[in-house]
Amino acid sequence: MNETTARRRSRTGGGAARRAQRSAVSFETAKYIERNIPNFEVLNDEALEIIEANAETILEEIGVNFVNNPAALQRWRDAGADVRGERVHIPRGLARELCKTVPAKFTQHARNPERNVEIGGKNLVLAPVYGPPFVHDVKGGRRYATMEDFRNFVKLGYMSKWLHHSGGTVCEPTDVAVNKRHLDMLHAHMTLSDKPFMGSVTDPSRARDSVEMCEILFGKDFVQDNTVMTSLVNINSPMTFDDVMMGALEVYASNNQACIVSPFIVGGAMAPVSVAGTLTQVLAEVLAGVAYSQLIRKGAPVIMGAFVTSIDMNSGAPTFGTPEASHITYGAGQLARRLGLPFRSSGSFCGSKLPDAQAAYETANSLNMGLLSGVNFMLHACGWLEGGLVASYEKFVMDADQLGALHKFAAGVAIDVNAQAMDAIREVGPGGHYLGCTHTQSNFKSAFWRSDVFDYKPFETWAEEGSRDTMALASARVDKLLGEYQQPAMDPALAEALAGYVADKKASVPDAMG
Amino acid sequence: MNETTARRRSRTGGGAARRAQRSAVSFETAKYIERNIPNFEVLNDEALEIIEANAETILEEIGVNFVNNPAALQRWRDAGADVRGERVHIPRGLARELCKTVPAKFTQHARNPERNVEIGGKNLVLAPVYGPPFVHDVKGGRRYATMEDFRNFVKLGYMSKWLHHSGGTVCEPTDVAVNKRHLDMLHAHMTLSDKPFMGSVTDPSRARDSVEMCEILFGKDFVQDNTVMTSLVNINSPMTFDDVMMGALEVYASNNQACIVSPFIVGGAMAPVSVAGTLTQVLAEVLAGVAYSQLIRKGAPVIMGAFVTSIDMNSGAPTFGTPEASHITYGAGQLARRLGLPFRSSGSFCGSKLPDAQAAYETANSLNMGLLSGVNFMLHACGWLEGGLVASYEKFVMDADQLGALHKFAAGVAIDVNAQAMDAIREVGPGGHYLGCTHTQSNFKSAFWRSDVFDYKPFETWAEEGSRDTMALASARVDKLLGEYQQPAMDPALAEALAGYVADKKASVPDAMG
Repeated sequence: MNETTARRRSRTGGGAARRAQRSAVSFETAKYIERNIPNFEVLNDEALEIIEANAETILEEIGVNFVNNPAALQRWRDAGADVRGERVHIPRGLARELCKTVPAKFTQHARNPERNVEIGGKNLVLAPVYGPPFVHDVKGGRRYATMEDFRNFVKLGYMSKWLHHSGGTVCEPTDVAVNKRHLDMLHAHMTLSDKPFMGSVTDPSRARDSVEMCEILFGKDFVQDNTVMTSLVNINSPMTFDDVMMGALEVYASNNQACIVSPFIVGGAMAPVSVAGTLTQVLAEVLAGVAYSQLIRKGAPVIMGAFVTSIDMNSGAPTFGTPEASHITYGAGQLARRLGLPFRSSGSFCGSKLPDAQAAYETANSLNMGLLSGVNFMLHACGWLEGGLVASYEKFVMDADQLGALHKFAAGVAIDVNAQAMDAIREVGPGGHYLGCTHTQSNFKSAFWRSDVFDYKPFETWAEEGSRDTMALASARVDKLLGEYQQPAMDPALAEALAGYVADKKASVPDAMG
Repeated sequence: MNETTARRRSRTGGGAARRAQRSAVSFETAKYIERNIPNFEVLNDEALEIIEANAETILEEIGVNFVNNPAALQRWRDAGADVRGERVHIPRGLARELCKTVPAKFTQHARNPERNVEIGGKNLVLAPVYGPPFVHDVKGGRRYATMEDFRNFVKLGYMSKWLHHSGGTVCEPTDVAVNKRHLDMLHAHMTLSDKPFMGSVTDPSRARDSVEMCEILFGKDFVQDNTVMTSLVNINSPMTFDDVMMGALEVYASNNQACIVSPFIVGGAMAPVSVAGTLTQVLAEVLAGVAYSQLIRKGAPVIMGAFVTSIDMNSGAPTFGTPEASHITYGAGQLARRLGLPFRSSGSFCGSKLPDAQAAYETANSLNMGLLSGVNFMLHACGWLEGGLVASYEKFVMDADQLGALHKFAAGVAIDVNAQAMDAIREVGPGGHYLGCTHTQSNFKSAFWRSDVFDYKPFETWAEEGSRDTMALASARVDKLLGEYQQPAMDPALAEALAGYVADKKASVPDAMG
C-alpha cells in the first residue's frame, strides 16, 4: 500500500468506517489456502522428461503462429527465434530460459489490503466463474445474462467466505454494448466488492481502460510498482497467438500486471486425444506465451494456465470431471512446478444443464483434482454450469460452500498432544462415548467442517419442511445472501472519480455490437 | 477351481452355455482395478510413528473388551495378554506381531472364475451398498426394503460393468423373518449373479449357514482351501468386541473365509473429535481384532476396515464427504500399508435424502478419496443414500457409472510413442484441428471415458426431451437394466441343491423377529 491509498483510507468518514466494520463482521473472507498437504503427482520423471523434450521439438521444428502482430514477430527475431511469415520457430531451450525471469510467486493487491492474495508456491486462490453469456436460476430458468445479473454475482462473491477473488466476467452482461461493458464490469468489481479482480482482455484498448481505472482506484505509482489485476489471456490452441489476446497481454505485462497464459483445449479437437500429447502441446504453448510476456517486460507476473477437458466423441460436446481431465491437470501441475511458474487450472466444471447430481459429481471431481494438483489460481471455482455457457445462481452458492471443505482439507492433520487425544481415549474407555468428554467439549466447535447449504436434519424434519432438494436449499440461500448484502465502504471522492471515468468513456464512443 | 466345480461347469447344458455366452456379451464386468497411480499420503512419518506408539499404549494400558466370550479371553491369555474380567490388555507389539501371518493379498473366488477378485496390493475391488433398512426410488419414494428390492439390487449389481462384487446385505429384506432372511439373501447372490459375495454376520449360526451354502456351491474341499466369502465384522467402537460379531468372525476365520475387521465410528461419538485421535483408536481396534482372527486360524485372510465419518455437532447427524473423513481415510490407508494388511474404506457416502447435488458432491468426494487412499475393498461403492439408511435405485446406477471413471483414472497415463502423439501435432500444426487426423481416428474409441447416465446433448435437444435431471435419467436406466436382466446359467442340480437347503433350513425353525 503506498501513501496515497493509505491516506485515502484514513480519510474515509466515520459512517463509512462503521459500515466497513459491520461488513468485516458479516462478510468474513477466509485467507487464501496455504496448503499443508502434499501434491498428487501422476507422472514419473521419465514421462515428464519425454513431454518436456517433445515440447521443445514442437517449438523448434513446428513453431507457433503470432497472428497479425508484426511487432511480436520482431521481438521474437530479436530474441533469437527463426521467424518465417507469422510462424515463430523457437530454438530448443530459449523459451524455457526466457521464463526464468517470471516471479514464482506474486501479490495481487485488493483495495482492502486484508484481501490481498499471494499467487504461487503452496497457495490456492479461489475465483468465481468467468465468461457465461447465460444465467440460470430455479425460478427464472435459463436466460441471457444482464448487468443486473453481473452485479448480483459480484455481490454473491463478495459475501462468500471461501472466495478470495471477485473474478472477472462473472457473466457477460449482454444488455450493455460490447465495447462498453468492460467499464461497467470493472466498476462493479471495484465498488460492490473489495476483493481483488481481473481486467478486460477482449481488446487492447479495453485492457488500457482497465489499467486506467486501477490507476484511479489504487494510485498511478502504485499500479506501476504492484500487481492489481490478474487477467485471462487464452491461447487459440493449437499453437496460435492472436493479436487481440496478445495485445491485451502486451498492455498488462508492460504495466506489471499479471496474465494467465492459458491454452484453451477441448481434447481431440484442439489437441491430440491422448493425455501425453495434450500435455506436450500445452507445455509448448505455455512456454511460448509466457516467454513472450517476458519479452514485453522482464519480471512481469505470469501464471501458467491449462484449461483442458475431454470431448464426448458421440456428440462432440466437451465433458467435465472426467478421468482424462484429471490426468492432464495433475500432469500440468507437475510441469508448472518444474518451470517454477504459478499454475492455474480446474474449477466447478460440469456439463449438466441443471445444478443436479450430474453437475455435482462433475464439479466435485474437478475441485478435488484442483486442490491436489497444486493449482495456485482456480478460476471458475464456483457457479459454472452447462460447459461454461451458463452462470448458475444456485450452483454458485453450492460450489462456494464446497470450497470451505477444500480449506479444511488443505490445512492437513494436526498431531500435537491435543490432537492425539490420548486423555480423551483414557477418559472414555471401552464401551463409552465421547459426546460429553472434556476433549470433545474443548474442541468440537472447530473439529468438523459443516456445510451452510446441505440438509443434515432427520428425514421426518426434512419431509415436514417440504422435502427440499439441494437446488431449493441453494435458491433460499441466494435470496438470503442478496437480501443481506451491504456495499463495502468507499471514499466518496474516489467513487465519484470512478463513476466519472466510466461515464466519460461510455459517452466518448458509439455503441458497438462486436 | 477344483475338479468338482470344473466338472460341474462342463456339465452345463447347451442352452445354459448359450445363455451364459449371451450374458458374457451383454453384462460385461470389468476386471478389478489394478492401480497404476501413486497413493495420496496425508501423514508424514513422524505422525505415523506417534499414532502407532499411541495405539500400542491403548492396547497395553487401557485394553479392549471382549464381551460374553470366555473362549476369546482364554485365547488371549494363552497368547500372552493380561486379561482382567472382560478387559484384554495386550502387551506392546504383541498384536502387531500376530498380524504378521495375515496374507497381504488373497483371492476371493466367484462361481464364475472370470469374476474372481484379488484383494490387497495395488488392487481395488468395488462392492455395492450394505445394510439399509429402506429403499428409495423416484417413483415410489422411501419405503421399507423387501426381498423383491434385494433381488433387484443384486440384478443391478450383476449388470453393472464397474462393480466387481455382488456385496452382502444390499438392503435389509424386512418382509422376511430376521432368522431366515440371510438364507434368501445368500440364495439371491448365488443364483441371480455370478460375482463374489459376502456371508451373514448377524449370528454365528448364520455364518455357519453361509459356509454350508458355499460348500454346496463350490464344493466342501474347495471352501476349506480357498476364500469364497468376504464378510463384514464391525467393532463396537470404542474398543468393544461383542460375541455376535466375534462369533461370526470365529466361524469365518476357522473356515479360511475372509473378514473385514472394521471399526464403525462417527467421530466425536465413538472416537475423539480429532483426526489423529480417531486414527489412533482405529489402529488399536484393528490391531486387536485382526490379531484375534489369527488366534483363531493363523493365515486366515483379513481386511483392515475403517468406517469413519464426521458428525454435525448441531444436529448430531453423521456427515459424509467431509474433509475430516478424507484425512482419516488417507491416514488409515497409510497405517494399513505399514501393517501389510488389505484395506477397506470409503464408498458412495452421503447424508442427503435424495440423489441430488448434495448426494453427488458428498459421494464424489468419498469416491475420490477411496481411490487415492489405496483402498483395496470398497464396500458401499454405489447406491448409498441418507447416511446408509436407504438404498437408492437411482443413486445405485449413478454411482456405478462414476465407478467407471475410477477405473480409467487408476490406469494412469500412457507415455508410449502413440500416446506422445507427435505425428498428430506435426500433421495438424498451428491453427488446425484434430477431429479428423489420423491419430484421432486410430485412438478416439478408447481415448475418453464416457458416462452412461449423464446428458451430454445440446441444451435444445435436452429441453425437447423433457429437461430431465440426473434422477430422471437414472430412473430410466434402472428400468432399462432390470428389463434387460438375464439370469446367469447354473447347473440345474446345483440350483436344486441350493433351493433345497434354503427350504429345509427355513422349515426347521419358527420365524424370529430379532
